[in-house]
Amino acid sequence: MISFAERMGGIKASDIRQLLAVASKPEIISFAGGLPAPELFPVADIKAAYDAVLDEAGPVALQYGATDGWAPLRKQISERMLKKNNVTIDPAKIILTAGSQQGLDFIGKLFLNPGDVVVLESPSYLGAINAFRQYQPNFVEVPTDENGMIMEELDRILATTENVKFIYIIPDFQNPSGRTWPLERRKQFMEIINKYEIPAIEDNPYGDLRFKGEFLPALKSMDPKELIMYFGTFSKILSPGMRLGWIAASETIIGKVNLIAQAAVLQTATINAMAISKYLDMFDIDAHVAKILPVYKHRCELMINTMRETFPEECKFTDPDGGLFTWCELPEYINTREIAPAALEKKVAFVPGDGFYPSGSVKNCMRLNYSNATDERLVEGVHRLADVIKGAMKA
Amino acid sequence: MISFAERMGGIKASDIRQLLAVASKPEIISFAGGLPAPELFPVADIKAAYDAVLDEAGPVALQYGATDGWAPLRKQISERMLKKNNVTIDPAKIILTAGSQQGLDFIGKLFLNPGDVVVLESPSYLGAINAFRQYQPNFVEVPTDENGMIMEELDRILATTENVKFIYIIPDFQNPSGRTWPLERRKQFMEIINKYEIPAIEDNPYGDLRFKGEFLPALKSMDPKELIMYFGTFSKILSPGMRLGWIAASETIIGKVNLIAQAAVLQTATINAMAISKYLDMFDIDAHVAKILPVYKHRCELMINTMRETFPEECKFTDPDGGLFTWCELPEYINTREIAPAALEKKVAFVPGDGFYPSGSVKNCMRLNYSNATDERLVEGVHRLADVIKGAMKA
Repeated sequence: MISFAERMGGIKASDIRQLLAVASKPEIISFAGGLPAPELFPVADIKAAYDAVLDEAGPVALQYGATDGWAPLRKQISERMLKKNNVTIDPAKIILTAGSQQGLDFIGKLFLNPGDVVVLESPSYLGAINAFRQYQPNFVEVPTDENGMIMEELDRILATTENVKFIYIIPDFQNPSGRTWPLERRKQFMEIINKYEIPAIEDNPYGDLRFKGEFLPALKSMDPKELIMYFGTFSKILSPGMRLGWIAASETIIGKVNLIAQAAVLQTATINAMAISKYLDMFDIDAHVAKILPVYKHRCELMINTMRETFPEECKFTDPDGGLFTWCELPEYINTREIAPAALEKKVAFVPGDGFYPSGSVKNCMRLNYSNATDERLVEGVHRLADVIKGAMKA
Repeated sequence: MISFAERMGGIKASDIRQLLAVASKPEIISFAGGLPAPELFPVADIKAAYDAVLDEAGPVALQYGATDGWAPLRKQISERMLKKNNVTIDPAKIILTAGSQQGLDFIGKLFLNPGDVVVLESPSYLGAINAFRQYQPNFVEVPTDENGMIMEELDRILATTENVKFIYIIPDFQNPSGRTWPLERRKQFMEIINKYEIPAIEDNPYGDLRFKGEFLPALKSMDPKELIMYFGTFSKILSPGMRLGWIAASETIIGKVNLIAQAAVLQTATINAMAISKYLDMFDIDAHVAKILPVYKHRCELMINTMRETFPEECKFTDPDGGLFTWCELPEYINTREIAPAALEKKVAFVPGDGFYPSGSVKNCMRLNYSNATDERLVEGVHRLADVIKGAMKA
């Protein structure tokens, strides 16, 4: 008789993945995904990198490799973290993952017994919530304001909550809210987690995508006790289809993650790690990112301005300094999950906000992505969405 | 305070992965890995496939894609399973994985509560044991003989054991034993699992690598009740570094695996799936496999013949019809883990057999790989190993 594990009761389909399937139809204007603009992928340069790898070291690229991942790439990541994030990290404390999502699964597996507590921002990335849910934790949500996590609330929660295994945060251009923590909050956060000695995942897929405002240091750059597990990825600055991210953390944690990776996947794809390493040797990735930024800045501003013009006054939305998302809060009586079908009928898609709250208790928000649409479709999509929202407003 | 999950108590370093790190030094003759012969990789053809994919559909290849994986490749896999394995399977019942190892992790996660039972051959693949151990099952080992699993024993175990969630088997050129189940055993197995309605993983990474004897049908080709979860991979017939395998199973199981994959990794690498799909379009993979077979046949025979000449009479070893491994049983008083350091001192590596028994109770066996060494190193390595074994023999 076939019977599945108890954990499957908590594993739900990702709204985003389900929506992507529908929203990939060309007639739908989709603000649902978190897809980079594909027309900006450096296709010719990446092809040159694959060609060079296969010409120079084909049999190595196609063979099994080490679980921690292609060593020259880990060294390049270490150098880049120093240059971009002011983080000093030994390459031995870096392990490659098949995208950050895999890192979330590994860290959930490493830390969580059923009933253990994960503390996270309210709202937080639904893909992380789903990854952790596989290990049956309880979630405790920390209230946020326009500057991210409210540190007094975090302190209070850590002082009064048992079995907190780790904290999950996205301090830069958060998914879904688009918000960024100011320096003072970062310092406070590090003080608090040092006081309680609680480790934290600093998930930073969007940090390089700052198109206005000033650089802010990574939490990992203020972490002498090595409590931070820093997650980086090439998905948003180079290509998500190559599935390559990394975790930078203490030797102990990386050693344990290595054991999990051995058991769960053996290793990331040798050829992709070598191709990215070669790309970084042959080309200037920062010059490539510099081409992305003005496009995302423009699209963000166009979306925000069009929302200002068309959305009812009662709607509030964030005005991000970088990243891929804005977050829109509608009047409390509007359940965005309930208006999503009407939006799809008008051929526009968004992600309902409740999935970003483990409790599912906040119903009146939506996440909107601006990186993956042309100007024309962006404006048209916002107009359609405005109509849907107006249709749901009380007179 | 950092504390890890209870499951980490059971997750050990893979002997194979640890040995590979040591054995990758060029002065070591390694029979430890399960590495394909890298000089046979069709590097130029694979390069042509990557080039064609990036030329024709670069932005698609570098972008996110669906969790079940590149649809044209799933269709090609379905067609190949019909042609090679006589298995009729809808592509919708196939999900791509980043190698079969990831599939083992997913199925463990899908089925196993702590204390549930996994039934497997004794010995069985240690990477599978490690993958399942992450979910804290109990293992029940089914005795085997030269024809694989003994079906009367399986029947007895299933009749008397509670909470058996699935059976894990490798009927073709088993890892580690190199043994293959004859047709009659296959039919008996299907009768038994149908009687008890217990699902089974048919792990078939080596099935295409038959270099002598006659084709035998896959269990999946005799499975009207869809109890078999068939695992295939491109690792041994094309390239392990591209990390691409698949699970073919019932709609219910594939749907659940899809949910797990969403939460754990989002998807396999789009570019690698598209490159393999393109390779299958552009080239004849069976013609490529036909080039591998005589080489592996020769290496296998050379290893076996050299062992016959040099190993003490008391040593028994299998004579496989395909695949990558032979399995050597030494006198009972020799613990192969204890002689491994002496072998490494003589610059030859093997995998001690105890890791292939969940109980760890059988100590006098070793797994030897013949696919990854030149003739000269193969002969020299077996001679060195013979010396080490002779040194451990009682006079």
